[in-house]
Amino acid sequence: MATRDDSSPEDRLIARFFAPIAIHPGALGLSDDAAFIKPPTGCDLVLTADAIVGGVHFFTDDAAPSVAGKALRVNLSDLAAKGARPLGFLLSLALPKDTGDDWLTGFAEGLRSDAVLFGCPLFGGDTVRISGPIAISIAMFGSVPEGSMVRRAGAKPGDRVFVSGSIGDAALGLDLRKGVAWKLSEPQRQHLMSRYLLPQPRNALAEAVRMHASSAMDVSDGLVGDFAKLCRASGVAADIEAEKVPRSNAAKAVLAAEPAMGETALTGGDDYEIICTVPAAKAESFRATAQAARVAVTEIGEIKAGEGARFIGPDGKPLTFKRASFSHF
Amino acid sequence: MATRDDSSPEDRLIARFFAPIAIHPGALGLSDDAAFIKPPTGCDLVLTADAIVGGVHFFTDDAAPSVAGKALRVNLSDLAAKGARPLGFLLSLALPKDTGDDWLTGFAEGLRSDAVLFGCPLFGGDTVRISGPIAISIAMFGSVPEGSMVRRAGAKPGDRVFVSGSIGDAALGLDLRKGVAWKLSEPQRQHLMSRYLLPQPRNALAEAVRMHASSAMDVSDGLVGDFAKLCRASGVAADIEAEKVPRSNAAKAVLAAEPAMGETALTGGDDYEIICTVPAAKAESFRATAQAARVAVTEIGEIKAGEGARFIGPDGKPLTFKRASFSHF
Repeated sequence: MATRDDSSPEDRLIARFFAPIAIHPGALGLSDDAAFIKPPTGCDLVLTADAIVGGVHFFTDDAAPSVAGKALRVNLSDLAAKGARPLGFLLSLALPKDTGDDWLTGFAEGLRSDAVLFGCPLFGGDTVRISGPIAISIAMFGSVPEGSMVRRAGAKPGDRVFVSGSIGDAALGLDLRKGVAWKLSEPQRQHLMSRYLLPQPRNALAEAVRMHASSAMDVSDGLVGDFAKLCRASGVAADIEAEKVPRSNAAKAVLAAEPAMGETALTGGDDYEIICTVPAAKAESFRATAQAARVAVTEIGEIKAGEGARFIGPDGKPLTFKRASFSHF
Repeated sequence: MATRDDSSPEDRLIARFFAPIAIHPGALGLSDDAAFIKPPTGCDLVLTADAIVGGVHFFTDDAAPSVAGKALRVNLSDLAAKGARPLGFLLSLALPKDTGDDWLTGFAEGLRSDAVLFGCPLFGGDTVRISGPIAISIAMFGSVPEGSMVRRAGAKPGDRVFVSGSIGDAALGLDLRKGVAWKLSEPQRQHLMSRYLLPQPRNALAEAVRMHASSAMDVSDGLVGDFAKLCRASGVAADIEAEKVPRSNAAKAVLAAEPAMGETALTGGDDYEIICTVPAAKAESFRATAQAARVAVTEIGEIKAGEGARFIGPDGKPLTFKRASFSHF
């Protein structure tokens, strides 16, 4: 980022909103061309970048702190799925001319609180003007002990398939946000909508994943499509029992009232859960470690030899889906 | 980035245009949630991110390879000024719906050739839709031996001030691009315009800077304003002899015809040169090392105790400027 001095509007914006939250000494108060960090000894760096754009990945009237949180958390979720510990992030912010100080204040506060919550400080970045919607790009770096990043490739026949948290909430929450009306209690509505608004990345599960999983990825574009990618990368097949896919009570209420939403719940985006495969001999230890980390994990199926991930319905037959993945693109 | 499979338009785009150029093994062919790299032993990581936006930082009809090159090189320039060796980069690309395959082919080719030229491979990133101009954000990481990143702070009274290459070309080139007509030869016109179109970052000078400079920064928003930031960060003053600021022959031709452009040439943006301060005892060695690296460096002044960087005119009086820096913001 640029300097703390007041020679340009960008400098003033950085000095006012972002320098106060760049508390790592290597960030140099965002007053230099670059930041520095000493990487942990004996570790590999894990690198990821995800962007979110107004009108595409969030509603332009979403509260600024939750927009900041979403931008950070979609990246944190990638690190979690790779078994990595966050080290920090760089922010690129493209702002339309009419972006107000209130929005920036809220955005910076959202960044600050999540940076503290997830132990992932701001190191630098850039702020630019755009004649279009707000675009937020975050590059995040984390660490794993050398050679231990968990990949999508690595699942073996016999491995158990686990998924964290609950699946489908965010996709249903997005439908609610768009005005779809289901008979739900207000807390149920709020639960689903908040799951869309602000991901809950499973960074608390990262260590358990790293110690046990043969493969893992984050579920961001729909469980069915994402898990198909993992199976393809690993060169394996899988049978998933659709009934075992974990559901929140709110999602269960929607699906009871409208069973056709089952497909949306399995293929919709924005879950930000982790799906991973664990060798059978390590499954018990994985469960215990996850429980100690206070992250729910549910066994939903098993890896097989062959090709293709099947989701098996209650009648024992594979489900078919109109589309396996959600795409913003 | 997403997987190599063909389940979404984004996946297909990444597989077609970007996976082939992600040749570092840690990039995993852009087929995983994240990439990994083993950081060099005994080194600090140097982190920077800069974004460029269509209609702000480049013309929307600029050739796609040079847009890619500019996006990469504005970041490479930051690493060079910090004395860092590039390790790699992450790319976030926000694309309007009508972005054609031709543009993407050219953009990927521009990225590929500069990634090879500067030894700075693509590790991953993200591709998203935007209802607005193309926005390109690059996060770049480099390395320096532990504790040796050159900062803006560090200049001391008596240090010599050096600047690389030539100053003002890009600002004059931008004026030409906007239609300003000066009497220049065609090669002179082309030189100035190409300096705006595609920065020539001084990464070949990074090692010399790291071994000799007490402070350094890249000149991207105008020499006068940027050097004022360096002096402020270092808590020093400086006297710069404006006549010694290095000029290309093309810039000299403009200034001879139109002396009023002198201010633009000293305060305009997009030079992507390095300004640094070198203790007097190391100046000769710096010069020799720069020469061995085939990067021109010119001594333009001296650091003094006090506050404020003065640019002294041929009459011995400090120049005054309408504005010290260029700002896109």
